[in-house]
Amino acid sequence: LEDRFGITYQLSCIEGERPEEKAGRIAFEQTVELPQNCVPPDIRERIVGRMERLEPIAERRFEAEISYAQETVGEEFPQFLNLLFGNISLQRGILVTAVEWPASWLARFAGPSFGIDGIRRLCGVEGRRPLLSAALKPLGLSAGALARMAGRFAAAGVDIIKEDHGLADQPAAPFMERMEKCCEAVAEANAVRGGSSLYIPNLNCNSELLDSRLAVAKRMGVKSVLLSPLLIGPDTMRRVAATSGLAVLAHPALSGAYFHDDHGIAPELLLGQIFRILGADAVIYPNAGGRFPFSIERCLAIDSKLRGRLGSIRSAFPVPGGGIDSGRLSCWAKRHGPDTIFLIGGSLYARRDPAGAGGELLEMLKADFS
Amino acid sequence: LEDRFGITYQLSCIEGERPEEKAGRIAFEQTVELPQNCVPPDIRERIVGRMERLEPIAERRFEAEISYAQETVGEEFPQFLNLLFGNISLQRGILVTAVEWPASWLARFAGPSFGIDGIRRLCGVEGRRPLLSAALKPLGLSAGALARMAGRFAAAGVDIIKEDHGLADQPAAPFMERMEKCCEAVAEANAVRGGSSLYIPNLNCNSELLDSRLAVAKRMGVKSVLLSPLLIGPDTMRRVAATSGLAVLAHPALSGAYFHDDHGIAPELLLGQIFRILGADAVIYPNAGGRFPFSIERCLAIDSKLRGRLGSIRSAFPVPGGGIDSGRLSCWAKRHGPDTIFLIGGSLYARRDPAGAGGELLEMLKADFS
Repeated sequence: LEDRFGITYQLSCIEGERPEEKAGRIAFEQTVELPQNCVPPDIRERIVGRMERLEPIAERRFEAEISYAQETVGEEFPQFLNLLFGNISLQRGILVTAVEWPASWLARFAGPSFGIDGIRRLCGVEGRRPLLSAALKPLGLSAGALARMAGRFAAAGVDIIKEDHGLADQPAAPFMERMEKCCEAVAEANAVRGGSSLYIPNLNCNSELLDSRLAVAKRMGVKSVLLSPLLIGPDTMRRVAATSGLAVLAHPALSGAYFHDDHGIAPELLLGQIFRILGADAVIYPNAGGRFPFSIERCLAIDSKLRGRLGSIRSAFPVPGGGIDSGRLSCWAKRHGPDTIFLIGGSLYARRDPAGAGGELLEMLKADFS
Repeated sequence: LEDRFGITYQLSCIEGERPEEKAGRIAFEQTVELPQNCVPPDIRERIVGRMERLEPIAERRFEAEISYAQETVGEEFPQFLNLLFGNISLQRGILVTAVEWPASWLARFAGPSFGIDGIRRLCGVEGRRPLLSAALKPLGLSAGALARMAGRFAAAGVDIIKEDHGLADQPAAPFMERMEKCCEAVAEANAVRGGSSLYIPNLNCNSELLDSRLAVAKRMGVKSVLLSPLLIGPDTMRRVAATSGLAVLAHPALSGAYFHDDHGIAPELLLGQIFRILGADAVIYPNAGGRFPFSIERCLAIDSKLRGRLGSIRSAFPVPGGGIDSGRLSCWAKRHGPDTIFLIGGSLYARRDPAGAGGELLEMLKADFS
């Protein structure tokens, strides 16, 4: 298998559907898109997926592994995504759960430019403790108000101050004005405090604007940007991560469309492995017990894919968020461990002094992991 | 409502879930991402979605309409997608079924540069009849073999010869060589026959390569390209459609992730309206009765969204495909009507002489619509 993609599927069969046929159709659909009898024998051998394994795992549910030659993909990522789930997304009962990556193909990808160690360095954090990220929000505040909040978080020593991914270029806080004011406020607070709080603006925007916004961001001293790969295009995130010199924090907007129990792409594969290969240095996902229905097992599986060995690709920070109760942070820190960024949004804003509350959380994390 | 986005959702409630609360949470989640009690009153008024309507439509199923001010989006498309389904993709039981577009916002989008009339002109088709598209495949053939097939389809007068969306830049038929040879073969056949068959290469590729490939395509005389917006990024398709001068045929790869009965974005909204606003001149989707589970009602709903009135945005061609039996084309042509491109792939390749069979189908369409 070493030179082939090994893709594992969970197949849910409806009444009368035979798993061998369902798996066989995937092998053709994702490659030649032709009925079996129209495929020349040499192409069938070289190109059509090869059934490696098929076994029952539950009532009407089967696990199949199909392998594909690298030449079905070539060197480009969009065609990999297409092989993975392009046409079969339109069928039902097919969940892609895992990929075995050919080492030589993986080696083409730079992956995270910073990774866990690099992000810690950017934040000036020396010990091995979780990082704390606050979120700048809500949409509707002025650039000045958001910048003041950013400055306060930095003054409280919060490691990371990321913008909400819904802050784009709206009239209340136009992108350029917001980024400039936030950069200044955070730089000023860092200077006063001798800190290194990292401000992460949201760079989702129309494709024509992306490169010029990145250039301005760098001129303003920005070191890291927030991108939602499914909003701007997964390969666009890869390009930014590989070429901009900025650390990339990835947001999972739209990704939940893929996360059905019997159809889609498993979260630990999409968020934990694909986003990492695409160069995300840190990946936000919804923590268990918050506003979204992820289980703790799912979260730990994502953690493990982000941090685990993957060729020579750097590990990336898991960033559980989406409704973490600050009162339970200590618990969550034990579960997720030190190589985690905790994104605390609403729970800080529910406090009278969000920045002060952030500072206290940070002291708690430092104490817990000292 | 005229200046606001009106978004219609179908909400499926689990035991104990109250529809008013579910709808209310959407209005906050998609805008301020904060609990109600943390949102300043003026922002609540300006930014949080406003409940316009909520009514039961079936057992535990409700239709809600929530409206959002344009200032929640600004002018950029990625943030519109985020408003539409960004975070709520990660929750369950939320299907976005329709959008009422603010006229002034829609007016920012060029939409299809060619549209139905423009594509007919490109193909030199004067009467109002359906167009026929063949597919160049399979992956694994050499560039020369694909080009010979393209030339034969053109010699048979087939209106459109589109590449499979899985033909990227693989070693068997590298992109540049394939495009060059196919262009030559189709141009030669067109010259001999006095025809205008349209060759449509697949332009999905890494983001760094897209603009140079588009430039080469134009130099070679290409008039239209195939793009999969969810593989390369929806906004990237918009940029290509708006700036390249080429007609865009959109492929639905990955889109099926959104097409669940109780969660996602309805196909007629995503393929029929959003792809059109993004500038697709023609949109491929899986026809009823083929390899994918779309009903004929669904297909006709997509047709109607692609062709219907939408501000000043041109109408786009529906392109049913995905396993149309050539023997039933006449029937399908009656159902879908003359403003349709029929994409016939495998069914032609099952014939001894695919190009000849394509030519016969074309004559049949001409006779049916004369």
